[in-house]
Amino acid sequence: MAGGGKKKEVKKETGLGLSFKKEDNFGEWYSEVVVNGEMIDYYDISGCYILRPWTMSIWEIMQTFFDAEIKKMRIKNCYFPLFVSSSVLEKEKDHVEGFAPEVAWVTKSGKSDLEIPIAIRPTSETVMYPYFSKWIRGHRDLPLKLNQWCNVVRWEFSNPTPFIRSREFLWQEGHTAFASKAEADEEVLQILELYRCIYEEFLAIPVIKGKKSEMEKFAGGLYTTSVEAFIPNTGRGIQGATSHCLGQNFAKMFEINFENEKGEKGMVWQNSWAYSTRTIGVMVMVHGDDKGLVLPPKVASVQVIVVPVPYKDADTQGIFDACADSVDALSKAGIRAEADFRENYSPGWKYSHWEMKGVPLRIEIGPKDLEKNQVRVARRDNGAKVDISRANLVEQLKNMLDNVQQSLFNTAKQKRDACIQVVKTWDEFREALSQKKMILAPWCDEEDVEKDVKERTKGEMGAAKSLCSPFDQPELPEGTKCFASGKPAKRWTYWGRSY
Amino acid sequence: MAGGGKKKEVKKETGLGLSFKKEDNFGEWYSEVVVNGEMIDYYDISGCYILRPWTMSIWEIMQTFFDAEIKKMRIKNCYFPLFVSSSVLEKEKDHVEGFAPEVAWVTKSGKSDLEIPIAIRPTSETVMYPYFSKWIRGHRDLPLKLNQWCNVVRWEFSNPTPFIRSREFLWQEGHTAFASKAEADEEVLQILELYRCIYEEFLAIPVIKGKKSEMEKFAGGLYTTSVEAFIPNTGRGIQGATSHCLGQNFAKMFEINFENEKGEKGMVWQNSWAYSTRTIGVMVMVHGDDKGLVLPPKVASVQVIVVPVPYKDADTQGIFDACADSVDALSKAGIRAEADFRENYSPGWKYSHWEMKGVPLRIEIGPKDLEKNQVRVARRDNGAKVDISRANLVEQLKNMLDNVQQSLFNTAKQKRDACIQVVKTWDEFREALSQKKMILAPWCDEEDVEKDVKERTKGEMGAAKSLCSPFDQPELPEGTKCFASGKPAKRWTYWGRSY
Repeated sequence: MAGGGKKKEVKKETGLGLSFKKEDNFGEWYSEVVVNGEMIDYYDISGCYILRPWTMSIWEIMQTFFDAEIKKMRIKNCYFPLFVSSSVLEKEKDHVEGFAPEVAWVTKSGKSDLEIPIAIRPTSETVMYPYFSKWIRGHRDLPLKLNQWCNVVRWEFSNPTPFIRSREFLWQEGHTAFASKAEADEEVLQILELYRCIYEEFLAIPVIKGKKSEMEKFAGGLYTTSVEAFIPNTGRGIQGATSHCLGQNFAKMFEINFENEKGEKGMVWQNSWAYSTRTIGVMVMVHGDDKGLVLPPKVASVQVIVVPVPYKDADTQGIFDACADSVDALSKAGIRAEADFRENYSPGWKYSHWEMKGVPLRIEIGPKDLEKNQVRVARRDNGAKVDISRANLVEQLKNMLDNVQQSLFNTAKQKRDACIQVVKTWDEFREALSQKKMILAPWCDEEDVEKDVKERTKGEMGAAKSLCSPFDQPELPEGTKCFASGKPAKRWTYWGRSY
Repeated sequence: MAGGGKKKEVKKETGLGLSFKKEDNFGEWYSEVVVNGEMIDYYDISGCYILRPWTMSIWEIMQTFFDAEIKKMRIKNCYFPLFVSSSVLEKEKDHVEGFAPEVAWVTKSGKSDLEIPIAIRPTSETVMYPYFSKWIRGHRDLPLKLNQWCNVVRWEFSNPTPFIRSREFLWQEGHTAFASKAEADEEVLQILELYRCIYEEFLAIPVIKGKKSEMEKFAGGLYTTSVEAFIPNTGRGIQGATSHCLGQNFAKMFEINFENEKGEKGMVWQNSWAYSTRTIGVMVMVHGDDKGLVLPPKVASVQVIVVPVPYKDADTQGIFDACADSVDALSKAGIRAEADFRENYSPGWKYSHWEMKGVPLRIEIGPKDLEKNQVRVARRDNGAKVDISRANLVEQLKNMLDNVQQSLFNTAKQKRDACIQVVKTWDEFREALSQKKMILAPWCDEEDVEKDVKERTKGEMGAAKSLCSPFDQPELPEGTKCFASGKPAKRWTYWGRSY
């Protein structure tokens, strides 16, 4: 077995290690880290990616949480077809305009042309709502609350990026209908809170809850709420997940009516909401470093990797047994632990390998540890090492995992907060934008002004746009003016470049 | 609230009840029962169906079981793209020939034509195996064991049927690669056993494990094993799920090579295996009756429905409380129970409604039951009713659910067994086929002979084909001749018409 001295050579041989640095070349670093961390493989069709087991286990952990939460809310899972006919897709005009350029069309089966082309769902509003209309007759059929876990296709041509912008992606999409606006409004926020939870409590990423501008809201909806994350390295905001109130617009187009208790006709109020595999890309971007992925413990399929460090003449069997015992003890306590007993890989190679894959804690057990009945634990997030008695192993590691989780969030929040800049004038805005800030500015909330901001900031880096008006509004003193138009400001709004 | 006397009228009003009988018009009965049982809705694109929550909950229960089992086998979930380029799809000739006529092609995005048409996966062998070739280098990369839960598309034109034959369906597909044939062979049977378990222990449907003939095996594979079910009403066999050994054929085409311990080059041995939402259709066909669905308790999302039966002047609140208490007690014991407290529906209407939906047990609580501290329990499968003291409720209902599960299986097995006919000559075979039997016959196992059987039996009802050669072979006395060719028989094989 190769010793520590051969580490560098082994690295070269196996291609471990990253050739790009996060600070220097973020784009290349990201592509490399998702591939070398074995999350993604590039596919021979541009914009499509292979989600490897290391990705899917993260997705499944979030899915298990979210699925249980929405079931508590009595939302039920269903599955609607992948295909949608053009006549149905085109029923809601604003909606189809928003998606039309990205729709993929099936026109052939085998060697035959289809009579009419069939679209692949970019989202399922138009797929589902004709059936909402059929199923909903009276107030007793309400609320109707459905969700599906599925793939959707948006054939975008701009800059595909793994997880963040791909032509096919996995998501859940919830679609609900209520008798009253008040019920719909309430659910919008309940779901948004679950999305906050996924980002902040699972992925350890701080997000801002808020409302989208008219320009940025969901095509065809009434209003859109979102959780917004920020990538300090690129200075770009990223829409984390969205919870839309569709109002009665789709209900009108799809004739989703009901009779209330008094026998009066009404139209339903609808919501739709979704989060996607994009979440995982944001996680990689926020926490990853020059050694590779950094996974928050709550979503890591392996939270603790145990590596035996035998030396010549040492009690190899004893070391291996201690490793197996540690994994056993941790597993029994509900900690996801594995040992790496592979032969022909040096401990050093294994360290690099599991660092690349972002495993939160590494346990090393060598002859000296065996002698002292201890293990050495190394943290992935900050590299700190500590010796822990095997007597307290489980308790200590539970604490450490909690610490790592909290510490990842705190660090990410510090970095994010350092990027937030409050501005009041156009000059300050331009300056902050050039410094890649997430800009909080008083705004008149007029669509023309947002268009104008976009127009005036367009360039190589991409135009700025509004990210959201945070629910948590700082005080807006009377007489405050819009940073862009000079008109009276209505609210504080976040602006920036975005993904 | 309407009393029992108004039951018939209520039924008419709400369209409860089936207009077709299972014995008289099986096809129409099936279409009606999946719709009225709220499992399926027909969709405006032919051959695509909406899977409603009542379906998805069954799918999820099976998925939870199967996913946990394969994870124990260290098979990992992944997700490969929906799309496959034509060059890759066409790499394995036998394979593509098998699927080509059913492949849907995307040729446009938005208003632009794609440079080259892109196929939608009918199955993912060709999607995945180029990456198996990339990821597998040495024996340490083996075995590679992946699975994905996804949708696939087969644009069939013959007779679409909900669950059984649809243009899009949900399934899991496992794809594994081993260093040796022995390991591959072993896994084929392990997976087949899980499929038997899904059918027999979850869906209460007897199946026969066996090997497919050369004609019926998976296109491009080495051999195919399957679990075969039978639908007595139509006299058709139905392939329940398949576990294929692909041999080294795909490995050759996709160059999936590895270096073994001794530094010698080898080719991997591969398996692929799948079960789909078809399972649910078989369940409906086998257990359903003229009142609607009959769900086996193990897959029913509601195992017990509790219906209050208040009369004028009775202690309505007491009855409602008893219902709620019963649901509470059952839920705490892990039984999936719900109460139907809806107003404006009569108890009679509710009985019919939950019978249509196939809930295994119904609890009725009326004034007399309240007085005697008992409940009345009605079994969906055989209509039997029994009064049970509330003191023993949980224990008794657990037993009853077990009984219903076992009894559904026994009844289905009796009916299936009554359809099995052993024949030795062509005349006996024709006669049994006309009687819609599942025919067990000695066969020479020659492809030409199977072609000949197909040719000689084709007609309005469809040709007969081999279903499988069961692993459990009856004795085959020396000198036994093939029922079709008169040549020496090699094995007993099941034959019949099939889905």
